[in-house]
Amino acid sequence: MDPRMLALGRQSSVIREIFEYGNARRREIGAENVFDFSLGNPSVPTPGKVTKAMRELLEGDPVALHGYTSAPGDPKARAAVAAHIEKRFGVPASLENVYMTCGAAAALTITLSAIVRQEDEVVIIAPFFPEYDVFVRTAGGRPVVLRTKAPSFLPDPGALAAVVNEKTAAVIVNYPNNPTGAIWDGETLSAFVRVLEEKQKTLGRDIYIISDEPYRELTYGKPVPYVPKYYKNTVVCYSYSKSLSLPGERIGYIFVPSAAADASDLFAAVCGAGRALGYVCAPSLLQRTAAMCVDLPPDLAAYRENRDLLYNALTEYGYECVPPDGAFYLFVKSPEPDAGSFAERAKKYELLLVPGDSFGGPGYVRISYCVSTAMIEKSLPAFKKLIGEYQNG
Amino acid sequence: MDPRMLALGRQSSVIREIFEYGNARRREIGAENVFDFSLGNPSVPTPGKVTKAMRELLEGDPVALHGYTSAPGDPKARAAVAAHIEKRFGVPASLENVYMTCGAAAALTITLSAIVRQEDEVVIIAPFFPEYDVFVRTAGGRPVVLRTKAPSFLPDPGALAAVVNEKTAAVIVNYPNNPTGAIWDGETLSAFVRVLEEKQKTLGRDIYIISDEPYRELTYGKPVPYVPKYYKNTVVCYSYSKSLSLPGERIGYIFVPSAAADASDLFAAVCGAGRALGYVCAPSLLQRTAAMCVDLPPDLAAYRENRDLLYNALTEYGYECVPPDGAFYLFVKSPEPDAGSFAERAKKYELLLVPGDSFGGPGYVRISYCVSTAMIEKSLPAFKKLIGEYQNG
Repeated sequence: MDPRMLALGRQSSVIREIFEYGNARRREIGAENVFDFSLGNPSVPTPGKVTKAMRELLEGDPVALHGYTSAPGDPKARAAVAAHIEKRFGVPASLENVYMTCGAAAALTITLSAIVRQEDEVVIIAPFFPEYDVFVRTAGGRPVVLRTKAPSFLPDPGALAAVVNEKTAAVIVNYPNNPTGAIWDGETLSAFVRVLEEKQKTLGRDIYIISDEPYRELTYGKPVPYVPKYYKNTVVCYSYSKSLSLPGERIGYIFVPSAAADASDLFAAVCGAGRALGYVCAPSLLQRTAAMCVDLPPDLAAYRENRDLLYNALTEYGYECVPPDGAFYLFVKSPEPDAGSFAERAKKYELLLVPGDSFGGPGYVRISYCVSTAMIEKSLPAFKKLIGEYQNG
Repeated sequence: MDPRMLALGRQSSVIREIFEYGNARRREIGAENVFDFSLGNPSVPTPGKVTKAMRELLEGDPVALHGYTSAPGDPKARAAVAAHIEKRFGVPASLENVYMTCGAAAALTITLSAIVRQEDEVVIIAPFFPEYDVFVRTAGGRPVVLRTKAPSFLPDPGALAAVVNEKTAAVIVNYPNNPTGAIWDGETLSAFVRVLEEKQKTLGRDIYIISDEPYRELTYGKPVPYVPKYYKNTVVCYSYSKSLSLPGERIGYIFVPSAAADASDLFAAVCGAGRALGYVCAPSLLQRTAAMCVDLPPDLAAYRENRDLLYNALTEYGYECVPPDGAFYLFVKSPEPDAGSFAERAKKYELLLVPGDSFGGPGYVRISYCVSTAMIEKSLPAFKKLIGEYQNG
């Protein structure tokens, strides 16, 4: 047995533990009395057009519909994604640049396996999605953490320059960010890529940005700079999990722009990595559904309402929050140094919050507001009482 | 860039090359004049009950339907699979033993990653599915080939004993076999596992059988011995790709029987490996569809008709074939030593056959009969002329 896999399987994630605790409380006191903000499972139903597309597809020839697609995906789905990218962002794209995947996690493991050689380093920017560490190690790489500072959690170019060296193969960039909800502005991104351009020259190696964009469409007004427009050596990992509320269906893609160094080899390596990891093709019904829905905007109304309600109430009560520009997370400063003990105290009020430690963001808690607005409304007095303990203490 | 991934991506598979050649010929002379026996894509539509199940599911709550399931799968799907296993094979099974996967390839890469440590050896039995070699290497293992002899291609216990050593972590067993269509009888399996039992004792380590069973339901009368009934340390990898004609949808499972050594740790390692490789969960709609269809028998009528038609005609013309007990492949002896040049010659008659070399079965060609019966009928004169070249030469 492989000890790393056993450890990974036994290691209960913090979020999972909180979720199980919530299940127990729901049984004890009723689901309507538990304020569970732990999970990132979209609460908005998939748009009716997606369901309609699936129904229409099911009317067609089942042999063609459910048959293997080619490994990079159904040509129509790849072409539809490419056309969307080109139209939306003005970046040249054809089906040859698009590899359909089983969601963003597969996009990341495949891209990392394609890029990273044994002992290479991959920079991940704290706070980060905890599985980045796992995925980088699967590819044989070593994660190197670039810290950022509250309250913006934007990266500092000097700090980036200090962690990039001759072993650096890639940097994972993720905004709208999980867990902070922050979106980089164009200036921040420009300064960031200038460091990488310079490092590529002085170190004489390609350093790729892996742009992990599952929350790209979830923005409440602030523009989301498209990384390939700023930096040639970018690979985009996208998923329809959040934008179309299809997280369980595992459908996304990898976009390797032609401007990337050795783009054709890199795309071949992506195909090789998909093969090596056992991804034969992305689910065919979902590929075809995505092809019909690439231009569909997400339904943000509920998330926006939740965000405004929660952010306004919490800041009014005295909480400090990262400005929640996108995604469906609020990253809230713990009123005591240890976010774990703050989250424990919150349980007294049936509030389930995730300490930021496993995201590389200690001293903060993550609050997922992809929940019902009614639950948020009902939870507000609990949030008020909770902060009151610190204000009066 | 990772050189192994680049090589894997650039390496055009023999089957793919033949398929592309076929596409070119179809454009040139019309699809009806090309006899393409290269692909293992089921030609029988998925049963109407499967489509009906999907339609019903799409009537339900989309948030629940398309949400993340837990990593090992939807509890109802896992329980349905377990109940099916227990009822069908009399092997104790509960949902705790079942991990839903994105098809059999994912089941194999996950199981191998869970079991194999760096430098471990995994025995693969020729002729074999060519990706076994790739998947074993992804897990950090070294494939060791156990040769078998024509015409039965059944393993010899003495030969097995000769390749198993203190580094052997697992043996992959696959019947009904791709590419031969052969099914092991109970006596062969018993002799095989006796060697492994003995080796486990003398070497003092667990040696797992990974039973790769995508073709389990595709048998034309011969019983298919269920490996967990013969050998405790078995992990079953299953897929609904062939039995329910859903190859593009990527739905299958791993079954870790409780009787296996360290079963609970092994299951945890499977969960860890799934996580490490980026398999968040198997596609949720398909998990739920499988749960409703676990007991559905495959529609074998067309494959049986094709098999009988092709096998009877080819043997009558003078070809030597492995008795095709299951799957939808006929493994035919090349009338000249080099199957590659035989397959080249077959192209003159627009017959597209796959040389057995990449399957570890040189001197043979694989003929996939998951095609239309009409195509087989139309192809028979070509097969007759082709063998005639050797008989008159």
